[in-house]
Amino acid sequence: MKTRDKILLKSLELFNELGERKVTTNHIAAGLGISPGNLYYHFRNKEEIIFELFCRYEQQTLGLLMAPEDRPLTYADKIGYFEGILGNMWDYRFLHRDLEHLMADNLPLQERYRLFALQVMGQGQRIYQRLAESGLIEARADEVTALILNIWIIVTSWIPFLLTSGMFGQEAAINRDLVKRGIYQILLLEAPYLRGEALDKLPEMKARYGGVAEPAPAQKSA
Amino acid sequence: MKTRDKILLKSLELFNELGERKVTTNHIAAGLGISPGNLYYHFRNKEEIIFELFCRYEQQTLGLLMAPEDRPLTYADKIGYFEGILGNMWDYRFLHRDLEHLMADNLPLQERYRLFALQVMGQGQRIYQRLAESGLIEARADEVTALILNIWIIVTSWIPFLLTSGMFGQEAAINRDLVKRGIYQILLLEAPYLRGEALDKLPEMKARYGGVAEPAPAQKSA
Repeated sequence: MKTRDKILLKSLELFNELGERKVTTNHIAAGLGISPGNLYYHFRNKEEIIFELFCRYEQQTLGLLMAPEDRPLTYADKIGYFEGILGNMWDYRFLHRDLEHLMADNLPLQERYRLFALQVMGQGQRIYQRLAESGLIEARADEVTALILNIWIIVTSWIPFLLTSGMFGQEAAINRDLVKRGIYQILLLEAPYLRGEALDKLPEMKARYGGVAEPAPAQKSA
Repeated sequence: MKTRDKILLKSLELFNELGERKVTTNHIAAGLGISPGNLYYHFRNKEEIIFELFCRYEQQTLGLLMAPEDRPLTYADKIGYFEGILGNMWDYRFLHRDLEHLMADNLPLQERYRLFALQVMGQGQRIYQRLAESGLIEARADEVTALILNIWIIVTSWIPFLLTSGMFGQEAAINRDLVKRGIYQILLLEAPYLRGEALDKLPEMKARYGGVAEPAPAQKSA
């Protein structure tokens, strides 16, 4: 792996684990066993690393939210979106933890994030339109717009919510099961609009994403 | 007005206007034309001021979310909850802007906030139960629980959402109309569960809280 990629991976790991504020470029260099000078050869400062990590997050998210144009959307696609969103929330959890702070001194990130938000909204609209065409959802245009915005807010605010409310455990550690519980909240957001197979499978989906306090039952096939 | 109350009011004003991070106790004292020593006589540090402001916010919120026990809940009560939530979001917007940061070095606030979150959830449950008894809402227990949690997240995350996404205007200034738009999002969260008068009045409520881009039509009576 190239040094540049190693720096990004180690940064992501440390940011996620400790929170971005507690991690300096020196920590990152030390964690890789390279000199700070070597790190600065690749990135001028921490803001550049954060910006680059955001670009990867963005690419992954926008890639995930592409709807295949050559066939109708299926229920399996729908699960795929949920799993992808969950994966992204977990993999880049430092981003959602403290976004306003990350953006405050990082104008390129600020501009890019705002463009990203608009793109996600647009792709979300397209996905719901396609889900409606497949008979998996039924909602009016204003309902879809509000739904997508609410989903966006839950996705981006779920980790701050966990950290501030302490509602699913007092300790500061965020584990993947707690992030998964955020998907349950999104599931219930769209529940009233589900139709067909999506509605039939709702109880199964609730069990899949809602089982935090109880150990999840062994499940091999979806 | 007592000096202590004046300090709290001026702090709230400056925190809301500039963001808490940019305001020091010296700014607050200067804004009131009192000496820093006089301020320190009442509050040992900024954290104590923030804690006291939070207690006022808490008291107002919990007072607002009391359901009258001597009569059924009405549609007018329902509007009252929305208006009260909106007022609190606006009056204490600095709290929602950067809560994790405010709580990070303020253990008393952290503990109190978590207790508050649980109390709000409990009162929310009670309100929805009473609204169901009045025929204004129909939802299963798990739907109500998820709904209240989602409302909580929208209320507490709406201002960070505005600031980071730039979706309703690129400038950093948060105005009351933008906060009002958050109530619209909550309205659409519960829309699928509304019944009776609450359902009949949904279009009117949408117009009341959704009209951000367009100038709101003159409306004398609700």
